[in-house]
Amino acid sequence: MKLAFFGDVVGRSGRRAVSDHLPGLRKRLELDAVIINAENAAGGFGITAGTAEQLFDAGADVLTMGNHTFDQPQGISLIDNDPRILRPANYPPGTPGRGANLYDVNGYQMLVVSLHGRVFMDALDDPFQAAERELAAAPLGEVADIVVVDLHAEATSEKNAMGYFCDGRASLVVGTHQHVPTADTRILPQGTAYQTDAGMCGDYNSVIGMEIDEPLRRFTTRMRSARFEPATGTGTLCGVFVETDGRGLAVRAEPIRIGGQLADQVPAA
Amino acid sequence: MKLAFFGDVVGRSGRRAVSDHLPGLRKRLELDAVIINAENAAGGFGITAGTAEQLFDAGADVLTMGNHTFDQPQGISLIDNDPRILRPANYPPGTPGRGANLYDVNGYQMLVVSLHGRVFMDALDDPFQAAERELAAAPLGEVADIVVVDLHAEATSEKNAMGYFCDGRASLVVGTHQHVPTADTRILPQGTAYQTDAGMCGDYNSVIGMEIDEPLRRFTTRMRSARFEPATGTGTLCGVFVETDGRGLAVRAEPIRIGGQLADQVPAA
Amino acid sequence: MKLAFFGDVVGRSGRRAVSDHLPGLRKRLELDAVIINAENAAGGFGITAGTAEQLFDAGADVLTMGNHTFDQPQGISLIDNDPRILRPANYPPGTPGRGANLYDVNGYQMLVVSLHGRVFMDALDDPFQAAERELAAAPLGEVADIVVVDLHAEATSEKNAMGYFCDGRASLVVGTHQHVPTADTRILPQGTAYQTDAGMCGDYNSVIGMEIDEPLRRFTTRMRSARFEPATGTGTLCGVFVETDGRGLAVRAEPIRIGGQLADQVPAA
Amino acid sequence: MKLAFFGDVVGRSGRRAVSDHLPGLRKRLELDAVIINAENAAGGFGITAGTAEQLFDAGADVLTMGNHTFDQPQGISLIDNDPRILRPANYPPGTPGRGANLYDVNGYQMLVVSLHGRVFMDALDDPFQAAERELAAAPLGEVADIVVVDLHAEATSEKNAMGYFCDGRASLVVGTHQHVPTADTRILPQGTAYQTDAGMCGDYNSVIGMEIDEPLRRFTTRMRSARFEPATGTGTLCGVFVETDGRGLAVRAEPIRIGGQLADQVPAA
Ligand SMILES: [Fe+2]
Ligand SMILES: [Fe+2]
Ligand SMILES: [Fe+2]
Ligand SMILES: [Fe+2]
Ligand SMILES: [Fe+2]
Ligand SMILES: [Fe+2]
Ligand SMILES: [Fe+2]
Ligand SMILES: [Fe+2]
Repeated sequence: MKLAFFGDVVGRSGRRAVSDHLPGLRKRLELDAVIINAENAAGGFGITAGTAEQLFDAGADVLTMGNHTFDQPQGISLIDNDPRILRPANYPPGTPGRGANLYDVNGYQMLVVSLHGRVFMDALDDPFQAAERELAAAPLGEVADIVVVDLHAEATSEKNAMGYFCDGRASLVVGTHQHVPTADTRILPQGTAYQTDAGMCGDYNSVIGMEIDEPLRRFTTRMRSARFEPATGTGTLCGVFVETDGRGLAVRAEPIRIGGQLADQVPAA
Repeated sequence: MKLAFFGDVVGRSGRRAVSDHLPGLRKRLELDAVIINAENAAGGFGITAGTAEQLFDAGADVLTMGNHTFDQPQGISLIDNDPRILRPANYPPGTPGRGANLYDVNGYQMLVVSLHGRVFMDALDDPFQAAERELAAAPLGEVADIVVVDLHAEATSEKNAMGYFCDGRASLVVGTHQHVPTADTRILPQGTAYQTDAGMCGDYNSVIGMEIDEPLRRFTTRMRSARFEPATGTGTLCGVFVETDGRGLAVRAEPIRIGGQLADQVPAA
Repeated sequence: MKLAFFGDVVGRSGRRAVSDHLPGLRKRLELDAVIINAENAAGGFGITAGTAEQLFDAGADVLTMGNHTFDQPQGISLIDNDPRILRPANYPPGTPGRGANLYDVNGYQMLVVSLHGRVFMDALDDPFQAAERELAAAPLGEVADIVVVDLHAEATSEKNAMGYFCDGRASLVVGTHQHVPTADTRILPQGTAYQTDAGMCGDYNSVIGMEIDEPLRRFTTRMRSARFEPATGTGTLCGVFVETDGRGLAVRAEPIRIGGQLADQVPAA
Repeated sequence: MKLAFFGDVVGRSGRRAVSDHLPGLRKRLELDAVIINAENAAGGFGITAGTAEQLFDAGADVLTMGNHTFDQPQGISLIDNDPRILRPANYPPGTPGRGANLYDVNGYQMLVVSLHGRVFMDALDDPFQAAERELAAAPLGEVADIVVVDLHAEATSEKNAMGYFCDGRASLVVGTHQHVPTADTRILPQGTAYQTDAGMCGDYNSVIGMEIDEPLRRFTTRMRSARFEPATGTGTLCGVFVETDGRGLAVRAEPIRIGGQLADQVPAA
């Protein structure tokens, strides 16, 4: 079974990178499933029906979110109603939407779990407990043929730890939120594919996807002059490709980077 | 002119990766200068005379530090006395040691600036002001033939911003501290080579270089049972290679990863 | 029913303030119950059997803890075995000890709940959910004659919010951890006595209970020269006095401050 | 010489508490100078010409600010042009306005210094260095007859440390930002009056001055439903009164609390 996961789509440049490159890639790599983190799809903040549709049209099966989950007011009912969009599973009880779900993709049962880190981030319930609960509810090799865990987190230590925590129980543990891809793609000792951060889909000639001027002004003056606006240059499609064996464990894990400012890296078909 | 920068050396595995691979690499790539972040060289915390010597012996010209600068009591006088070791330039006035220095390497004047981020980190004076001051004191193309800036920081946004802040005024801006290499090596519009994080030199079968059990226990139980100990498996030499033109601007920037858990990536000679 | 709650006991000066003033005060005010936060009782960090005994001997019925709960290795089994000592109720499942308990004091059933804040503090599960759960398990006026909630927290906003969250369901919501008493003692609209912080029992000629030199050095130099040591001058007994009606709601709430650097404030008998 | 300092004025309730009680109090206590923190005067966020005028009309000589300094776009030029309004002295070089100033009040030379803390707050340059610089520029007993330092900070430890750092060199060191008055008013060993937090001028039936519902919703659900709005009940005038000797050191320091939800506390004339 073959899947790809792509990191935080930032604004129009990010969505365009997905629309431009994903359909061809999906065919070429014969992907059974595609998951995309979409927390910055709508102008850099949250998700709307239109931006979600654009990503589904380009080939996404499931969208995950992060700290920007509910930035768009219309995103709340969207997430509550569309089971293809996940918000973090360790959000408080009663939060609209769902944090994990089982999907039928090309005849495979795929569990996707969205988690939110706590180090240097807003206060939330324990993502490790949430992972434990969701992995136990649809165990790999029993209920699920494939398990994908997205940990939306700031600290590399928390992401490393989650990788080993899930090792052998997930097909892929991948981080999002840093908006920079990490070069540590590998298969952990018990068979889980791992990459600390998927990187963003967006224009890398920017400060984590945003036009450079305003963030730089805030860093150097402590004053706000304008909103953050997504950078509008050519975006990069950025993520990770995983191939699994019959048990749902990884036999291949490779980065994907197509277009824009970063050097291209495309897995062989 | 050719140089390489390597990220945080973590404990014995990290030092061994440097000793095993750097001497050969230095010859093969005909490196004029090597800079290494050594803030975790001594058992994961700080630096000692012995661990510094080991890195100099293997081919380092300059060592930079970070939030662990003064973790070893003996490190304080070492850093104060040895001009080849830098602590962050934006530490308070009166701090032992120096934050930037001009080095003669193979006949080139090389300015190295050590900076410390502030986002999600301890309170310090502004690293952008410090960069401004140090870059103005030895301008690229006038006083310095080559300028290397290490921003030891947690947040990718702060590192991105520093890259553009120094673009055209430094040969390389590279981040450290995250202990995971980023895959965004590139040359910025004005000619500065950039990589958000150099990654660590150490055993990647770990939680950012440390044995997995204790960090995982702290994440899941909030209790401490033991000290953090560096992982002892085979380490990876991890960093970035840069070649500059006559003005000290980058014409080539490529990641370096040799040995251990990560896929090898070695620049062509 | 009459009770008093005293804030974080810091080291010997704090324990002495309790031993010197509590026995007399308990008689004079005819207190039915005394609760003390003891997270800094042992040399400023955690609790030991000896320091706990000293506080029980002086008249404490129940001890609560905070972020320093497990700082002393011997404190772990002590807290696990002695039901009179509570650690935060929103610590992870499986943590030694208990976070809330029902006590028989002078014939009254007293529920005490220890909670830990999350703003500017370590990651923990939601203290509001924990409060909800514990208050529902022993409702005021049904199971409990009196309910005391200690929120060990940094942010005044989180403590204010907890006060209103529990208003009408607790006899007293009081904060700890800031080591400075607040002057906002009052009865909230639904009858819960409230004070944002009880203040510490310790020597106020200090930096939150610690000798001044080392914290001041760290603020101004970013270097550590020594351990934090509790200040050794005369301590202040610092807390809040509450009298309740037949429903367990507050009819009187007044600060207590006796001895040391702060102006004395003693409720009339 | 007699002065009073009042903490963060929050919205209309806060401004009204100042207008209602300050004119009479200023007469009764024969105050030579009045300083007010006004960072929340305009609807809870920043300052405007109109809200500043209201506070000056009620008897303020100087207004200090904090993390909300520039929340109102029109506040920027106001602060830049009106020397009676101070923004933190440790803001970056080039920031509009001034961080300290010498005022002629009733024939006394009064230095006021506005400082901003760094613990649990945005990154800024060192407030201790800034204090050192400003105190040296107009030393108490030489240039200044009276020196008032406002440290706008979250952490009680940072405020305690600043008190001792300035002890003997300032007439008053007082904290703001926590929006809850502390009950630790005292004179430090070298003669500086000190109170960890002045408390807010505003409606205490609130979450630090704001209507309860929205902050409580955010704490319990992680979702935003509305803006923060200042609570509209009767406000409390909240601050500290200091009387100094001929050297500008404190001989008397007492809290002031008038009106609203807190128990009244008024210094004797
Ligand atoms: Fe994102
Ligand atoms: Fe994010
Ligand atoms: Fe490091
Ligand atoms: Fe570091
Ligand atoms: Fe404490
Ligand atoms: Fe505490
Ligand atoms: Fe404020
Ligand atoms: Fe503030």
